[in-house]
Amino acid sequence: MTTTTEASTTSAEGVGDELREQVRDAARRAKRAAAELAQATRATKDAVLNAMADALVRRTPEILAANELDVAEGRAAGMPDSLVDRLSLDPNRIAAMASGLRTVAGLPDPVGEVVRGNVLPNGLQLQQVRVPLGVVGIVYEGRPNVTVDAAGLTLKAGNAVLLRGSSSAENSNTALVSVLADVVREHGLPDDSVQLLPCRDRASVQHLITARGLVDVVIPRGGAGLISAVVEQATVPAIETGVGNCHVYVDASADVDTALRLLLNSKARRPSVCNAAEGLLVHEDIADEFVPRALAELGAAGVTVHGDERIVAYGGSNVVAATEEDWDTEYLALDIAAAVVDSLGDAVEHIRAHGSGHTEAIVTSDVRAARQFTAQVDAAAVMVNASTAFTDGGEFGMGAEIGISTQKLHARGPMGLPELTSTKWLAFGDGHVRPGS
Amino acid sequence: MTTTTEASTTSAEGVGDELREQVRDAARRAKRAAAELAQATRATKDAVLNAMADALVRRTPEILAANELDVAEGRAAGMPDSLVDRLSLDPNRIAAMASGLRTVAGLPDPVGEVVRGNVLPNGLQLQQVRVPLGVVGIVYEGRPNVTVDAAGLTLKAGNAVLLRGSSSAENSNTALVSVLADVVREHGLPDDSVQLLPCRDRASVQHLITARGLVDVVIPRGGAGLISAVVEQATVPAIETGVGNCHVYVDASADVDTALRLLLNSKARRPSVCNAAEGLLVHEDIADEFVPRALAELGAAGVTVHGDERIVAYGGSNVVAATEEDWDTEYLALDIAAAVVDSLGDAVEHIRAHGSGHTEAIVTSDVRAARQFTAQVDAAAVMVNASTAFTDGGEFGMGAEIGISTQKLHARGPMGLPELTSTKWLAFGDGHVRPGS
Repeated sequence: MTTTTEASTTSAEGVGDELREQVRDAARRAKRAAAELAQATRATKDAVLNAMADALVRRTPEILAANELDVAEGRAAGMPDSLVDRLSLDPNRIAAMASGLRTVAGLPDPVGEVVRGNVLPNGLQLQQVRVPLGVVGIVYEGRPNVTVDAAGLTLKAGNAVLLRGSSSAENSNTALVSVLADVVREHGLPDDSVQLLPCRDRASVQHLITARGLVDVVIPRGGAGLISAVVEQATVPAIETGVGNCHVYVDASADVDTALRLLLNSKARRPSVCNAAEGLLVHEDIADEFVPRALAELGAAGVTVHGDERIVAYGGSNVVAATEEDWDTEYLALDIAAAVVDSLGDAVEHIRAHGSGHTEAIVTSDVRAARQFTAQVDAAAVMVNASTAFTDGGEFGMGAEIGISTQKLHARGPMGLPELTSTKWLAFGDGHVRPGS
Repeated sequence: MTTTTEASTTSAEGVGDELREQVRDAARRAKRAAAELAQATRATKDAVLNAMADALVRRTPEILAANELDVAEGRAAGMPDSLVDRLSLDPNRIAAMASGLRTVAGLPDPVGEVVRGNVLPNGLQLQQVRVPLGVVGIVYEGRPNVTVDAAGLTLKAGNAVLLRGSSSAENSNTALVSVLADVVREHGLPDDSVQLLPCRDRASVQHLITARGLVDVVIPRGGAGLISAVVEQATVPAIETGVGNCHVYVDASADVDTALRLLLNSKARRPSVCNAAEGLLVHEDIADEFVPRALAELGAAGVTVHGDERIVAYGGSNVVAATEEDWDTEYLALDIAAAVVDSLGDAVEHIRAHGSGHTEAIVTSDVRAARQFTAQVDAAAVMVNASTAFTDGGEFGMGAEIGISTQKLHARGPMGLPELTSTKWLAFGDGHVRPGS
């Protein structure tokens, strides 16, 4: 059985236990599948990914029919248009998912890569090689394309995947996973490699993230609430992704035209994504020259500026006074918090206090300022004279990403295929024993 | 203030809050110290480590005086001799700690290493560089030498450390940390870089491992109970270390003399350490030749064999019937569980069901068997014709280790200096903006 999506809408004792067993059973089957997947050659995995792409296109009608059920249910429940749009599939969006799988098929296989190796003084040959993580759990919201992206990436890295999508996309995800698992089976791999977990009851998330010994890692993808709930409650290792309170700092030495271009691109290119800038910090020595133009250009782009006293003093119809909360807010909208700072050190302090460790940018023409900012700012990505929008697996040349890690363990920044693997040490001897006691 | 070890032996509401605030305050100060430490050059850090070594030797009398208080308290409380021995310091043991610090000073600095880098098609220069993790929490038992080892390794990797040792070693640890922090301060680094947390109340562990946003990673070192409690209750990312249910598998093609030598070395060299073998699996085709000699040699070494039916059938005064529990037991003593298996595949299955993912060894002369075993066994280290005892940071050429990770995220196997770091991406542009929306 590949899709285990029977509704379980009550959390009464008996049903809760049943759901727990259902999730754990799926995880056990995933673990067995993972042992086989770990041995699959790149040729097999790529053939599966390309065949999945073909099957998605071929079976578009049944996917769209399932999706229409979700969309109708969403509209009936009063789902806002923006969320209905995120949920809706059409032939172009399905073709884009298929294209994503083909891209992943074209990427190098991380499994088997020798990361380090040497011969020890005693002649023991030592190698550290990449191996799959095993069973990867993904907890996500909204968009059905995550189902396909996540399945493709985890499979290419040799892992089995347990997908726990949103109940609002249940029909779409069930149809998509059915297509993917059929292809896996047709290629002689276990169809338990790709499984959809029950999504009607919140408790299935809890059962997934506490299945220690069965699940090797869980990755939440979605809003800040989902991510912190998963990370705080998980007993399985979890990777924190995505929250981006990113800043653009305009140094005293910045070229003003460059700074304006980077600021607008960082803020307004796609305000809803995690690498969009949510904060602007301006060195006082350049404020008189930069701030009025920045406020005007942000206003023209529809951006509301939540400024400190020194920003508000420059005036403008799109400028409001910032509250303390503004410094910590990830707007994901046409809003930005802005402050004038006395020094680069103060900018670093502000970022240390309020940044989320995602992406921070400096605009400067001073090499010492660039060195200080890159050394002192503690974030997954630090940009010098480049837009915050570049923090992205595709832009970084990874081909695809499963999320952007904002934690420091295991992976930091865009997570591509190597970040979906672990390593193991292999030692080859001739009967080597260790002396001493 | 460097040592925050005021006793807090009650967990009444008011006191609990006070302890929580005390731990969080230490963590906040550690975070500020970490920001400075991250900028420290290798020259400074090595000078600190060497000066720490000198100071430990110079201040041996006060360390021994403090240790005597712990030892006296332990004896008065009826502590077993073996634990008193672990707790006791003498000039030689202090000299060994000092020597460990000098070794770490001689190791390359992981901070700043460029891990990957390239120029993107748009001309953006991208580098992934190693940076410190930030604030590292260590929760450990018994031995005071862990205080010095952990402080030296974390500091060399540019991290601040929060040490939460055993209450039985409180006086010793306080004296050691006082020596270390004095040296840090004398070298112009913040003395909050090395802090000892209160250790009289179990709740201080809880406060440490839930200080999200203040502590970057927590590493438990000790018994299985401590490790699983920390890993399951931590909301801070944790690294699971040390539990080793390691096996030696003797393949049908094994050279019997080699197999005997490896088995004895893996089991009896130092039975109390995590890389010692706790299980023996023998292919049935070689059992008649191998098992009687193995049982005899194990018996001569004082090892009790907990055998399955086929092992027990060979007899011997040191052979008892295994229970189901034996297969999952980390004896850390002169005991071993043993079974005859029908095939290499069955050995892999047994290891998959009962191994702890630490170290697994095969003895074989068949290259296909070696390939199958290394590919299918999922563990931090897999040995071919080598003793399980080689899984060790020192043996692997890392110079020193902070523990052996048995989890798959971030680090797997012996953790040296690079495993105590994270990375960040640096991008250098000329006003690069990202096209599209």
